[in-house]
Amino acid sequence: MTATDELHADVLIEGERIVALAATGSAAAEAWTADTVIDATGHYVIPGGVDAHTHMELPFGGTAASDTFETGTRAAAWGGTTTIVDFAVQPVGGTLREGLDAWHAKADGNCAIDYAFHTIVSDVNDSVLKEMDTLVDSGESTSFKLFMAYPGVFYSDDGRILRAMQRGAANGALTMMHAENGIAIDVLVEQALAAGRTAPRYHGEVRRELLEAEATHRAIRLAQVAGSPLYVVHVSAASALAEIAEARDAGLNVFGETCPQYLFLSTDNLAEEGADGFEGAKYVCSTPLRPREHQDALWRGLRTNDLQVVSTDHCPFCFTGQKELGRGDFSKIPNGLPGVENRMDLLHQAVVDGRITRRRWVEIACTTPARMFGLHPRKGTIAPGADADLVVYDPTAVQTVSAATHHMNVDYSAYEGRQLTGRVRTVLSRGTVVLDGGDWRGRAGHGTFLRRDTCQYLV
Amino acid sequence: MTATDELHADVLIEGERIVALAATGSAAAEAWTADTVIDATGHYVIPGGVDAHTHMELPFGGTAASDTFETGTRAAAWGGTTTIVDFAVQPVGGTLREGLDAWHAKADGNCAIDYAFHTIVSDVNDSVLKEMDTLVDSGESTSFKLFMAYPGVFYSDDGRILRAMQRGAANGALTMMHAENGIAIDVLVEQALAAGRTAPRYHGEVRRELLEAEATHRAIRLAQVAGSPLYVVHVSAASALAEIAEARDAGLNVFGETCPQYLFLSTDNLAEEGADGFEGAKYVCSTPLRPREHQDALWRGLRTNDLQVVSTDHCPFCFTGQKELGRGDFSKIPNGLPGVENRMDLLHQAVVDGRITRRRWVEIACTTPARMFGLHPRKGTIAPGADADLVVYDPTAVQTVSAATHHMNVDYSAYEGRQLTGRVRTVLSRGTVVLDGGDWRGRAGHGTFLRRDTCQYLV
Amino acid sequence: MTATDELHADVLIEGERIVALAATGSAAAEAWTADTVIDATGHYVIPGGVDAHTHMELPFGGTAASDTFETGTRAAAWGGTTTIVDFAVQPVGGTLREGLDAWHAKADGNCAIDYAFHTIVSDVNDSVLKEMDTLVDSGESTSFKLFMAYPGVFYSDDGRILRAMQRGAANGALTMMHAENGIAIDVLVEQALAAGRTAPRYHGEVRRELLEAEATHRAIRLAQVAGSPLYVVHVSAASALAEIAEARDAGLNVFGETCPQYLFLSTDNLAEEGADGFEGAKYVCSTPLRPREHQDALWRGLRTNDLQVVSTDHCPFCFTGQKELGRGDFSKIPNGLPGVENRMDLLHQAVVDGRITRRRWVEIACTTPARMFGLHPRKGTIAPGADADLVVYDPTAVQTVSAATHHMNVDYSAYEGRQLTGRVRTVLSRGTVVLDGGDWRGRAGHGTFLRRDTCQYLV
Amino acid sequence: MTATDELHADVLIEGERIVALAATGSAAAEAWTADTVIDATGHYVIPGGVDAHTHMELPFGGTAASDTFETGTRAAAWGGTTTIVDFAVQPVGGTLREGLDAWHAKADGNCAIDYAFHTIVSDVNDSVLKEMDTLVDSGESTSFKLFMAYPGVFYSDDGRILRAMQRGAANGALTMMHAENGIAIDVLVEQALAAGRTAPRYHGEVRRELLEAEATHRAIRLAQVAGSPLYVVHVSAASALAEIAEARDAGLNVFGETCPQYLFLSTDNLAEEGADGFEGAKYVCSTPLRPREHQDALWRGLRTNDLQVVSTDHCPFCFTGQKELGRGDFSKIPNGLPGVENRMDLLHQAVVDGRITRRRWVEIACTTPARMFGLHPRKGTIAPGADADLVVYDPTAVQTVSAATHHMNVDYSAYEGRQLTGRVRTVLSRGTVVLDGGDWRGRAGHGTFLRRDTCQYLV
Repeated sequence: MTATDELHADVLIEGERIVALAATGSAAAEAWTADTVIDATGHYVIPGGVDAHTHMELPFGGTAASDTFETGTRAAAWGGTTTIVDFAVQPVGGTLREGLDAWHAKADGNCAIDYAFHTIVSDVNDSVLKEMDTLVDSGESTSFKLFMAYPGVFYSDDGRILRAMQRGAANGALTMMHAENGIAIDVLVEQALAAGRTAPRYHGEVRRELLEAEATHRAIRLAQVAGSPLYVVHVSAASALAEIAEARDAGLNVFGETCPQYLFLSTDNLAEEGADGFEGAKYVCSTPLRPREHQDALWRGLRTNDLQVVSTDHCPFCFTGQKELGRGDFSKIPNGLPGVENRMDLLHQAVVDGRITRRRWVEIACTTPARMFGLHPRKGTIAPGADADLVVYDPTAVQTVSAATHHMNVDYSAYEGRQLTGRVRTVLSRGTVVLDGGDWRGRAGHGTFLRRDTCQYLV
Repeated sequence: MTATDELHADVLIEGERIVALAATGSAAAEAWTADTVIDATGHYVIPGGVDAHTHMELPFGGTAASDTFETGTRAAAWGGTTTIVDFAVQPVGGTLREGLDAWHAKADGNCAIDYAFHTIVSDVNDSVLKEMDTLVDSGESTSFKLFMAYPGVFYSDDGRILRAMQRGAANGALTMMHAENGIAIDVLVEQALAAGRTAPRYHGEVRRELLEAEATHRAIRLAQVAGSPLYVVHVSAASALAEIAEARDAGLNVFGETCPQYLFLSTDNLAEEGADGFEGAKYVCSTPLRPREHQDALWRGLRTNDLQVVSTDHCPFCFTGQKELGRGDFSKIPNGLPGVENRMDLLHQAVVDGRITRRRWVEIACTTPARMFGLHPRKGTIAPGADADLVVYDPTAVQTVSAATHHMNVDYSAYEGRQLTGRVRTVLSRGTVVLDGGDWRGRAGHGTFLRRDTCQYLV
Repeated sequence: MTATDELHADVLIEGERIVALAATGSAAAEAWTADTVIDATGHYVIPGGVDAHTHMELPFGGTAASDTFETGTRAAAWGGTTTIVDFAVQPVGGTLREGLDAWHAKADGNCAIDYAFHTIVSDVNDSVLKEMDTLVDSGESTSFKLFMAYPGVFYSDDGRILRAMQRGAANGALTMMHAENGIAIDVLVEQALAAGRTAPRYHGEVRRELLEAEATHRAIRLAQVAGSPLYVVHVSAASALAEIAEARDAGLNVFGETCPQYLFLSTDNLAEEGADGFEGAKYVCSTPLRPREHQDALWRGLRTNDLQVVSTDHCPFCFTGQKELGRGDFSKIPNGLPGVENRMDLLHQAVVDGRITRRRWVEIACTTPARMFGLHPRKGTIAPGADADLVVYDPTAVQTVSAATHHMNVDYSAYEGRQLTGRVRTVLSRGTVVLDGGDWRGRAGHGTFLRRDTCQYLV
Repeated sequence: MTATDELHADVLIEGERIVALAATGSAAAEAWTADTVIDATGHYVIPGGVDAHTHMELPFGGTAASDTFETGTRAAAWGGTTTIVDFAVQPVGGTLREGLDAWHAKADGNCAIDYAFHTIVSDVNDSVLKEMDTLVDSGESTSFKLFMAYPGVFYSDDGRILRAMQRGAANGALTMMHAENGIAIDVLVEQALAAGRTAPRYHGEVRRELLEAEATHRAIRLAQVAGSPLYVVHVSAASALAEIAEARDAGLNVFGETCPQYLFLSTDNLAEEGADGFEGAKYVCSTPLRPREHQDALWRGLRTNDLQVVSTDHCPFCFTGQKELGRGDFSKIPNGLPGVENRMDLLHQAVVDGRITRRRWVEIACTTPARMFGLHPRKGTIAPGADADLVVYDPTAVQTVSAATHHMNVDYSAYEGRQLTGRVRTVLSRGTVVLDGGDWRGRAGHGTFLRRDTCQYLV
């Protein structure tokens, strides 16, 4: 099963690559011999998932994301994802190179599956712009993320954003944007805290939907001025999606990603009180969760292709000791949710629920992220020549999500107790079985770093 | 090359079907033996084109389209199209069955390539609605075309349209719509003729863009009321496209087709005078050609997927003796252009010109029409199990379009003298080579009638 | 108080006209002498209301509207309205002249206040188009209403509408439109009745909002083709209003009217069952009442001037003997509500509720209808030279609406029991006090027929 | 003639106020006696113009606007404007009080006509927010202008803007916005200069239309978050206007002003080269002049009321010695055009040209600015009780605009040589004739400072 086809075929792997497909039962298929045969009868065979937005070991708010590249990529594989694209962070005052070196050091030898890097540009200046060229040329990083939020941390003003986008227009890089008006939000944060509104749910209230929509619109206009493509990360608000839809109708190269948390969770979760009024901290991420009615808009956006990709923005912080940093001050709760292991299954549940078709499932979770970030056709499809990253998926198995059983290094699940239909049975990464029927057979270091082409959706 | 992949692979055919793909040079590929080997080095191998909108032998305006199923399907194959979907016409006062019987009689034993039928519903009534169920169940026809134009001929009023759409909502049929406000147009026609504006170019002036946009909007609203999907044929106006885009943004199952004539020709052609002021008659079709600036909007719609399909609306009438019926009265010029042979090449020229990508070329010309009309995966893709309808395409060959060399049974070309880069070398229909390097090897009767599933884009 | 000014001034009347305004207490005011002095201390003095949409004695559905010009205009005056514009109906197969003659016969000598006529064009043809010119020239009727609803009765197809609009574009007439897709609605009516859905509330369900929006859009497009202005009557649906707003943004001469029933009533009323399940019949009118949430959109439209006029579409039918014609078949319930007496007070309640300002109240109820239909500056304002149609309004009096106390000739009130703040104290028509403090001093025959200019909003 | 009425009436003035209007020839009018009678036969009598956007003596770019309050208000009166609202500037680091004191000192005793002040807030902080309350309460300034342009000068970031707007939402003040993304523009300025693009026309190129539209959108969203009204000054771009129109359709209290320069001039003027390539400097203002096609959009906006006010943004700099500061560097050209004297005549030309009606002329130039900024009914209308600010206007006189004959203290005219139909004959300011038939009879010091109510368009 691919983004376009559903057919009965055998897949032949030589070494790390798929070399042939043949109709099941055909003379050609019957003629094949193989050292290992994996019987997928009654299952789907799909391309391994591509999660284009993860933050392993990300330092944030005085702590760091709790999954290392080792634990995080293993958990990804358990969930049917065989490629991640993580974000190397330029230190303020430093170079992109320093950021990438630091991230290579974290990942090298530790990953269970293949990985690539985007670069977070914290400090746009002339030498950084030149570095961008080099990284695009070598394929080490062909996409660069900027922040309209988090003043004093990752924030870039509109002038810096414009410069980076202009460079992207010239060198082919894709600009990724965290689109929230952080300057205005910080005023509302300060006012909320001053008024004693300190509980987790106020995180959602001050990060106003209109301020995501505004920033999204602004990013689009700046990209128009620069003549560059734009990829808006973690779209959560219906009105932000509407801005993207309008830009796409106008033929602009504007793309949008959403995440499972925005499709399956809502401000109802942020408002959960639990024993001590702080349960909602588990659901603090930015952009924030939105009222439930936004979910329908996002699902519609996925159907209409106004949203093209579902990534996780996986950035886990343990409730104990990490999320707790924000007791009494929601602005100190580390922003982020775990999810890299749950994405494929949650989206399959949407297939079961009639939200999306099976092919669209494969497309938004595997194929499009690969094409968007220059990894296709190695990743994201099942075709002769592609990497043998394959998932044998049982569409009828029923599982219950729980921190007690998940493989991410975090002490809670955002989907605790949720029952899902469908689960991964067998996972191959570059021809190697890393997971089979509940047995982990992978190893840290199997995963290799991927150089990338530029975005394949630009005409 | 498919709608999603571009890879180096060999294709293995057994009988009428593709059975396997293998990476070129792989052990698997090397192991294959075959009676016939077609060397495609330096060429593209693409799925055979699917032209979802043709009118062979259509009676219209006191004459009939000049291509028979024999000549028309042969010409299609010359142009790289291996499947057509033609329109059987219910006679007013008669049954859908009668229409289909008549069209089977015309096509049976005469086609060089495979074919299927839509049904034009000229007369919606209770028994016709029941017939629709039967045809959908059997797959004989799963799409039904209605006309908001041509009062007194094919025209259905909004009540009849609503009834047919309601039936489609229930039985899964796709409603196809000729969206022009024919009632208002006929007033303008009458006024133009009364004022002595009788030349071909007035055909374009009276069929006002706003009246295409209006009808498109109305069809969408009626489909919303009925809860049915809608496929708008031959979209030519930017404002009609905008209506479709808006509907799609809202998540409605609304689809749009355009045709090469709207992408490559304009009112400039309609205004051509030639020796006797009647040259423009060659370009009379409905919806009419639009001013040149609409072309950009249509190309953008193809890129943004607000338009999904390019079909030809192939409906040729010879200039001599047929188009001439309208000398002195543009309203008597038979409506229609030849094009079934030119579609794949014109769209490839758009690839060369940077209008669309190669993959999008395959998608809009082969894959999507097949999925839209329930022919996938037999048609429209290259995959194990699919029909071996394949085209070996030379992307660098240069040709000049001309009636002197084309194979359609019509005495002029709408693209006379146009130089195109790219041309078909070899065509296979269900595993049989029907064209190779300029040699016709096909035969009338090779083509078989295709039963169809319902539209594969409905969630 | 006028549409633009709120000031303390005395008004001097000579005969039938206002001749001067002077600041209260100024030497100029003090110098005045008068036969009669009306003390308005503590009250508003506003222009008499102009109700641009009434149907006195209208034959409909086998019966006739229960208010005669005598009872209806008297009730209007009780409610602070001093001018009505009623609709003369062209008989099918007859002339506009015949319709006007019939209406003059009904009104002449019977009206308590001044009146004018629009003309309903039931049958567009060449001689009718010529009559339109004559009527516009003489000012006898400068606005012509067409129906997209009621096939077989008032319905005009799009060709006839286009012809009438073209004539209006040439002679300056304003085309008024009942915008509902009656052809599609009739299918839904038939299906509802066949399914046993016969109660009054199904009237609202079959007359789908989308079919009002669709017809509104179509009317706008036809007006664009014709180059004519358009006035959409009784807008009830938010989506229809959106079409008007979009047209106005584009600079088109498109105007919209709504009515008190759409601002204050909803499908909740249509669904009222009463003793025998038929109570909802009191609220059957077309366009139908909409779900409550549409009210906010309409109020917003009045504030943003996307709607310019509030008229009543006063067309009363007694519950007993008239509405009852539709027991067991909602389609036989005569369409229409009483309201000519309630309009000014209901809209003042909106002022009290903060929905609109006082000046906007005067504007939408008095000034704009007068300017829209060529009655300004005689009507709709307080200015030297204007007719002395004045209302002394008590903004703090509280009243309870009831059929027991109203003056309309109908056995129920659509607003029964509703408490309103504000009520008319004194009414002058052309300088004559016709109502004062609850005493009726008017007389049938005081009202004169008004010739009109064309719409004053066209540039 | 007022914004709503055109009538034949005499106007009676006592002291500084209008006390009565009477129909010409009526007994009431005939009864009047007066010390002075002004015969306006064959002329219009309109309210004195209200120019809500002037910058007399504004320090800018190392120089200062060349009109003092004395010369500027005299020129205004020559042009039929009898009230100006100028901008007092808070010094960075200082208080609003200091700014107002400085402006009072400039204006006091020097003005020929009445005047009021907006306040430019250069530095939002807690004490400034408190000052805003005081100024609104006393009526000294009820509107506050912020800049999204000019970083380092007047610029406020989004947080400061949000705070100021929140205060306005609470105290009733109207936020005025210079909406251009100055941060992004400064990048483009720097790049243009670095590339040697230094001529005046590059001023227009770097201040991209999209960056005006973006800032307009952002200001609207921030106002939505704050719940405050917004008045966008000097709208010049069609796309910025579209943002305003969309906000108004949604019922937001968003208002828009444009200026004569955007209606009558274009980038063609900016590109004028003259003798030494610097002629375009005369037309440097911000927002900049736009390509000619924007003019139609702005006129349409004035007709549809998406724009409500035409002010001048009068800010004159002499070509010699002032504009010349920017030779070789367009960014050093002082931004601003003269125009306070030309506004009423230019807009009357638009009446002559059929762009707007006479009533709309009065409305956008007199009545609406007065109501927008809390000066109504003292200013902007002709009614008992209003200030006797009146203009007797000759609608048929023909004049040629020229620096040789204008009264503004600036050495060029932006409309040099333009022939206009219509000119001011007599001007009264608070009952005093200050100009009559080309004789100046006014005096510095006649004009008084006006305290203001808050915006009268808020529900």
